[in-house]
Amino acid sequence: MSASPERIREVVERYVALVGTGTADEIVALYAEDATVEDPIGSDVRTGHAAIREFYATLEGLDQETRLITARIGGGQAAFHFEIVTKAGEKTYTLSPIDVMTFDDDGVVTSMRAYWADTDMVVG
Amino acid sequence: MSASPERIREVVERYVALVGTGTADEIVALYAEDATVEDPIGSDVRTGHAAIREFYATLEGLDQETRLITARIGGGQAAFHFEIVTKAGEKTYTLSPIDVMTFDDDGVVTSMRAYWADTDMVVG
Repeated sequence: MSASPERIREVVERYVALVGTGTADEIVALYAEDATVEDPIGSDVRTGHAAIREFYATLEGLDQETRLITARIGGGQAAFHFEIVTKAGEKTYTLSPIDVMTFDDDGVVTSMRAYWADTDMVVG
Repeated sequence: MSASPERIREVVERYVALVGTGTADEIVALYAEDATVEDPIGSDVRTGHAAIREFYATLEGLDQETRLITARIGGGQAAFHFEIVTKAGEKTYTLSPIDVMTFDDDGVVTSMRAYWADTDMVVG
């Protein structure tokens, strides 16, 4: 049986929070061993914990705040719109991707695809 | 070469407008002959123009207004959040799905998946 919508929402909320303030290891723990990550959409697909950890490690140490804007959940899958605000020096970089995730029956993330492009980054 | 982001945005905007006020034939014309539609996510996948027309025909004649909330485009694909407000008698039904679409090199829609569940419908 698919993971419940409530369980999936919990994982999505935890993911968004961890992208802001978590470690790469904490984020990777949400993913299945053989999970895939395509971020941004159209880039090379990263497969497995090592490749996924390498990806999120680049975010560690950045001064970031995140918030979930909205999530839609059905059929054991989720699409959600969230915002990442990164401060670096005097500048603020705001990106609000739409991510799509699939989950196994326990709510472990089996794939993530992030829809955004460089032109969506707002620098203020 | 993938359809350009500008072309994809045009098709997304046209799709959202047609869901509000178009005919099933006008919407089907945006889809490839062998396109697939999964709406909502987790339901049976409809394949091909006849099955897709049948789906959108159920929307014809409804008193609907639609608007695009936001779209993210990359790698010849799109994810977008939009709103459909349907008036029926004294009631207003508001649904705001997140749809994901793939496109061929000319910007013709090759697949659509709509992320929403019954619990996302707001009745006012």
